[in-house]
Amino acid sequence: MYRTHSCGELRATNVNQTVTLAGWVQKVRNLGAMTFIDLRDRYGITQIVVEEHSDDETKAAAHQLGREYVIQVEGRVIERESKNPKMPTGDIEVVATKITILTASVTPPFTIEENSDGGDDLRMKYRYLDLRRPPLQRNMILRHRMAQEIRRFLDSEGFLEIETPYLIKSTPEGARDFVVPSRMNPNEFYALPQSPQTLKQLLMVAGYDRYFQIVRCFRDEDLRADRQPEFTQIDCEMAFIHQEDVLEIFERWARHMFKNVLDIEFAEPFRRMPWIEAMEKYGSDKPDLRFGMEFADITDLAHGHSFSVFDDAEYVVGFAATGCASYTRKQIDALTDYVKRPQVGAKGLVWIRVDGENTKSSIDKFFSQDDLRAIAERLGAKDGDLCLIMCGKKFKVLSQLCTLRLEVAEQLGLRDPKKFAPLWVIDFPMFEWDEETERFYAMHHPFTSPKPEDVCYLESDPGRVRANAYDFVCNGTEIGGGSIRIHDAQLQATIFKCLGFTPEKAQEQFGFLMNAFKFGAPPHGGLAFGFDRLCSLFGGVESIRDYIAFPKNNAGRDVMLDAPSTIDQAQLDELFLSLVKPE
Amino acid sequence: MYRTHSCGELRATNVNQTVTLAGWVQKVRNLGAMTFIDLRDRYGITQIVVEEHSDDETKAAAHQLGREYVIQVEGRVIERESKNPKMPTGDIEVVATKITILTASVTPPFTIEENSDGGDDLRMKYRYLDLRRPPLQRNMILRHRMAQEIRRFLDSEGFLEIETPYLIKSTPEGARDFVVPSRMNPNEFYALPQSPQTLKQLLMVAGYDRYFQIVRCFRDEDLRADRQPEFTQIDCEMAFIHQEDVLEIFERWARHMFKNVLDIEFAEPFRRMPWIEAMEKYGSDKPDLRFGMEFADITDLAHGHSFSVFDDAEYVVGFAATGCASYTRKQIDALTDYVKRPQVGAKGLVWIRVDGENTKSSIDKFFSQDDLRAIAERLGAKDGDLCLIMCGKKFKVLSQLCTLRLEVAEQLGLRDPKKFAPLWVIDFPMFEWDEETERFYAMHHPFTSPKPEDVCYLESDPGRVRANAYDFVCNGTEIGGGSIRIHDAQLQATIFKCLGFTPEKAQEQFGFLMNAFKFGAPPHGGLAFGFDRLCSLFGGVESIRDYIAFPKNNAGRDVMLDAPSTIDQAQLDELFLSLVKPE
Repeated sequence: MYRTHSCGELRATNVNQTVTLAGWVQKVRNLGAMTFIDLRDRYGITQIVVEEHSDDETKAAAHQLGREYVIQVEGRVIERESKNPKMPTGDIEVVATKITILTASVTPPFTIEENSDGGDDLRMKYRYLDLRRPPLQRNMILRHRMAQEIRRFLDSEGFLEIETPYLIKSTPEGARDFVVPSRMNPNEFYALPQSPQTLKQLLMVAGYDRYFQIVRCFRDEDLRADRQPEFTQIDCEMAFIHQEDVLEIFERWARHMFKNVLDIEFAEPFRRMPWIEAMEKYGSDKPDLRFGMEFADITDLAHGHSFSVFDDAEYVVGFAATGCASYTRKQIDALTDYVKRPQVGAKGLVWIRVDGENTKSSIDKFFSQDDLRAIAERLGAKDGDLCLIMCGKKFKVLSQLCTLRLEVAEQLGLRDPKKFAPLWVIDFPMFEWDEETERFYAMHHPFTSPKPEDVCYLESDPGRVRANAYDFVCNGTEIGGGSIRIHDAQLQATIFKCLGFTPEKAQEQFGFLMNAFKFGAPPHGGLAFGFDRLCSLFGGVESIRDYIAFPKNNAGRDVMLDAPSTIDQAQLDELFLSLVKPE
Repeated sequence: MYRTHSCGELRATNVNQTVTLAGWVQKVRNLGAMTFIDLRDRYGITQIVVEEHSDDETKAAAHQLGREYVIQVEGRVIERESKNPKMPTGDIEVVATKITILTASVTPPFTIEENSDGGDDLRMKYRYLDLRRPPLQRNMILRHRMAQEIRRFLDSEGFLEIETPYLIKSTPEGARDFVVPSRMNPNEFYALPQSPQTLKQLLMVAGYDRYFQIVRCFRDEDLRADRQPEFTQIDCEMAFIHQEDVLEIFERWARHMFKNVLDIEFAEPFRRMPWIEAMEKYGSDKPDLRFGMEFADITDLAHGHSFSVFDDAEYVVGFAATGCASYTRKQIDALTDYVKRPQVGAKGLVWIRVDGENTKSSIDKFFSQDDLRAIAERLGAKDGDLCLIMCGKKFKVLSQLCTLRLEVAEQLGLRDPKKFAPLWVIDFPMFEWDEETERFYAMHHPFTSPKPEDVCYLESDPGRVRANAYDFVCNGTEIGGGSIRIHDAQLQATIFKCLGFTPEKAQEQFGFLMNAFKFGAPPHGGLAFGFDRLCSLFGGVESIRDYIAFPKNNAGRDVMLDAPSTIDQAQLDELFLSLVKPE
């Protein structure tokens, strides 16, 4: 070892000990007679002193040092004259008797401190330097701890960690696959898994009734902000269970994580909310329940007052923004502008200021004070609240109002990252109608089991069928989701038919699964959690990129490695591929 | 839950309890009045009885059952009249009061028993059925336990589990990469990692001084028996350490694994053997030390006896096959045939039978009894042993003799899978000369540090340079290996030069790593273990395939999923690729 202690370890109890430290030079302060060096490793920072009467070699070495030099220091621990209570090692310093430069460093392109002066692109290119900063180190350590806790819990509950292959079969359904050309099977391709969904179902058929894996998944999608082409899932599946069993065990798992990682306990069971309630009350299937401001349908109260905007709308809905009656006209205009941005796309915003007897509104002309008070009451507004109302097509306006609710909450400081509001959203619809392609898509995935009582509508009214599907939501983010699966080959065939698969296409793509079901498939179900997302939730930082050691940028590039890159013609030849020039 | 207990759980203490079990029908025996059903899940088998006075529904259900039906059974636990001491549940049986068929099964294509009647290909195709068999279930459970123990140990030693990307940059050095075309960056490709080698070194530069990962690796090699295109490594790296520190901590790790998984303890420190000693004594850099039969160089004794075969050979070497003096002429001829097979490629085999006064040999004509006795003594032969001798170019004949030594040990039953002989092989040569391409290749990889005392030979005599590299070997198999890395950009450039890289090529392929080293790289090193191989070692079954849930066959195909497969023209178009017809 190059060291006897880490740079975060020494305390007053170590005074007078002879120690050896190794690490990076954070800072050098040359005070004429004395030189102070802040020496850093991932465990902390220790102050090194080179004294006036140190030998010449040590002084000479100290003079050469620059930021990020890697050095080894031998010395004696002494008590500091002026202690630094902000540093865990602040009671001591080490008087250097020998300094060895292990490797020099050129000047780094940005400061390696709690807050860096480097821009995003520069820090991505030199990710290995950015990773030296304490916030990223804390993130990596948090991720490590969470991974260990996840496994500890699931192992103790009898789940088996089983690795599934990364080179699998391409299935065009769902998102776009990354594909891998096979040299040994020319003109054929493997696909990288979007998730091990079908493989974990095969494990259930194989009798491994409790399975989990912390596993990489791949999706070749156009990247939105904070999406990565490769991401990590906590993937779980169980056999011989009902939906209630899955929710019970993974609620215990979530509590275990909150307790053991963040020391947070929840007195009450996690809330459960049917999908339709989440949509109608919060305009979202992943409502943020850290605060109230629930929606209410006021269509009946809004219609029939000669206000054509409302009269023409299918759905009129609003909520009471807590304590916002004091908003100025300018603030309200800003909210109106906010919802009119193309990203939200609303036509406008109606408001009612509830302030004692004096109820003011942007629709005073059409609604009497009593009418307005009735609306305010429906919205649960109290004195001092500001009712915000929008109208249009039901699910479209609900989604727009959701954006507004979150914006208002943000302004009110209600989205506290240290507060957690976990929730199960249940009873999802089985199918989603896509206007563009005029067909139904599986809302979850095509292996999701419909609720037995809704199976009768599968052919006649697919939109009405609810699924045994569930999402785990926290603070407005979907952290995980899953479903009870179909374990009957016949029902699976019916679902494929609803989704517009010909029997041939279904057989070609999922034949291996449907065939497996012929050999005795147990009832089974499970779920998967986004591990990157879970880390960012627990860490309280929005970007998942901060919890991934080597993330890709929004163009799917690793700018540090400079990947992807061109390959040799010889490699292409071996793979029986030729490039097509993009236009 | 569909069950109150597993099929491996019930004991005499449960007698008279009402229970519900669920699982697969292993066997149905219809004895007229009574029907016995063996119900199986991954925890065991429980005997179910349908009695003569059971209700008609239950009897009717029992009559429908076939092998691998999935059923749920409600019933009462009773003590068996004739107990089965071979089964953990053999003291009891469950009298069924209700049988529910959860899913039927068609007849499986092979028997699902401890030993199946299915051939390899059939079992690969129906892997999910093969995985139901107890031996494969034990293998998967062993793998799970080992993964948990690995992490438990490394976590307790302060190692951080950090995930590295799977979509990285292609580097033609080493084995062949699998590549992944990028849609967003047309005509460019990611590569799947052959190992996270450079990434873990960047983590050391980033200050994460103890890293590990259980990680998938990919190599597009022509598959030899028991090689997989994707395999799992236990990948580890440490900073501020010397070789001795790495060996110390991973010897403790190995002991932890042997103790906690197999309950085996080793009294002595693991043996350490320089590479040259392993080659000269066992003809292999991964010697099997479960038994002796060490080689000795007898060139000096062999030359000068007018036996031209020996006189013309650079190297004459042999070993004493323990207790084999009794081998018949026929047995010895078989050994000669064995080494003459093209896979071994030897010209012949010389033997000396050491049997009291009567020393017989195939070279009696050229060597006196005293000469033969001198050779036998050099080989450490005792009365009753058979000396086996070969000659030729030094390392070629050593390798041939190694094959013979293992064959003899196999015949003598010395390769007991329940016995373990761990070993560190150290002091590897830095480079390996390749006759075909007439250049040196890195024996380990190009980031391996030469021994400081050998650096002076780097340019003048590269073949003489030894590396700070080490392998962990057990029972004749390389389980892991690693090295102390170069952390100095200048030395790294010299090594690339020795390996025939131009500075431009080195910069293009490994620039990101050499650049990183400019910003203060700590001394570091590590190693990686083959996890599949480690499982097969611990499990005592030679094939790694038996420890992988969904392995590929020797053509790199997953015959269950039917992957790889063709993809749509639209997918190719999106990737700006066209197929070239193989000739």
